[in-house]
Amino acid sequence: MNAEMSLSLDGFVAGPAPTLDDPLGKGGMALHEWAFRLAAWRRPHGLEGGEVDVDSDLVERHLAATGAVVMGRKMFSGGSGPWADDPNARGWWGNDPPFHNPVFVVTSHSRDPLEMEGGTTFTFVTDGVESAVAQARDAAGGKDVLVAGGAETFRQALAAGLLDEIQLHFAPVLLGGGTRLFDGPAPARFAVTDVIGVPLAAHVRLRVE
Amino acid sequence: MNAEMSLSLDGFVAGPAPTLDDPLGKGGMALHEWAFRLAAWRRPHGLEGGEVDVDSDLVERHLAATGAVVMGRKMFSGGSGPWADDPNARGWWGNDPPFHNPVFVVTSHSRDPLEMEGGTTFTFVTDGVESAVAQARDAAGGKDVLVAGGAETFRQALAAGLLDEIQLHFAPVLLGGGTRLFDGPAPARFAVTDVIGVPLAAHVRLRVE
Repeated sequence: MNAEMSLSLDGFVAGPAPTLDDPLGKGGMALHEWAFRLAAWRRPHGLEGGEVDVDSDLVERHLAATGAVVMGRKMFSGGSGPWADDPNARGWWGNDPPFHNPVFVVTSHSRDPLEMEGGTTFTFVTDGVESAVAQARDAAGGKDVLVAGGAETFRQALAAGLLDEIQLHFAPVLLGGGTRLFDGPAPARFAVTDVIGVPLAAHVRLRVE
Repeated sequence: MNAEMSLSLDGFVAGPAPTLDDPLGKGGMALHEWAFRLAAWRRPHGLEGGEVDVDSDLVERHLAATGAVVMGRKMFSGGSGPWADDPNARGWWGNDPPFHNPVFVVTSHSRDPLEMEGGTTFTFVTDGVESAVAQARDAAGGKDVLVAGGAETFRQALAAGLLDEIQLHFAPVLLGGGTRLFDGPAPARFAVTDVIGVPLAAHVRLRVE
């Protein structure tokens, strides 16, 4: 199983003071600038045009390989706030979310699956990340399962030994604060298997050893 | 001016609990494993043999370009402890330090220059990193000045706008604690100008914007 995260050079996946309108926090949009301009990012978001280059090749490969997605409750909700506990929340991703695959949301709040437009179904899993991954594997039709975030779900999956590979997108910015991807004791070793660099990101692929 | 730092994926340049015998702290040696095996690292350290590959090309280019080095007092001393305040300390780097260039040490303790074997002279600068860089520029004979560490001196040089380029060597490990390279509010933007990946490191070169 694979996880994919964009982070700053100082290790943050979101900047300080996130809100529902700005769930990536102060400066956090800069983490994803490398993706926004790409045709491969725009298409699943229902947008036309965009650039095609080594960045988009990488995104296209990942899109094609992915059959199901696992994410945390905050990533579904667009952060943690009162809205995140609304049992009728339809999530932060609009009516036609960009996943176009079954998505398994790790949460402590039980609720019925939520079928969105465009092939995305959110299934809420209350018995932990391992169960979410197992359900995602069954739903992926032989394709890969992607842990899409956020930081807490990523760390849980890594600590549970569920990840074979990690794709980090280092955005060349410092945020100076916010939500760390890696936080606290979690010694681990990897091997760098691939790097691609462009002005807006250093894409580092790692195999978990 | 250029700075070069090895760090873990979770942003540490040294692990927890550094000592004089183990100034890189718990697990910290893993940050430099990519370099230890290289002919280009072994030669300036007075050792024969070693490997020649894309990693060593990068190290050789940097060695050839560097005419003077700036470092902090802790990097000179091998960490911070009682030994670091000894006015007669000859530093952590042995009688023939691997720099083979004039080295300017940012410190609050005034003392005479220390001439070592093999072309390394330590000059102690008590009026800040900008002064150390200015003196290093004069001594570099038209070559580049390298900020070699540690984290505090690196951050001071970055905050003072003294750095044009940064070479980060991400070692594919998590240390879970220790000394952070980036620590606290310091918003900055860069452009990724070059990446090289091998199993033991992702070398990311950045231009300060």
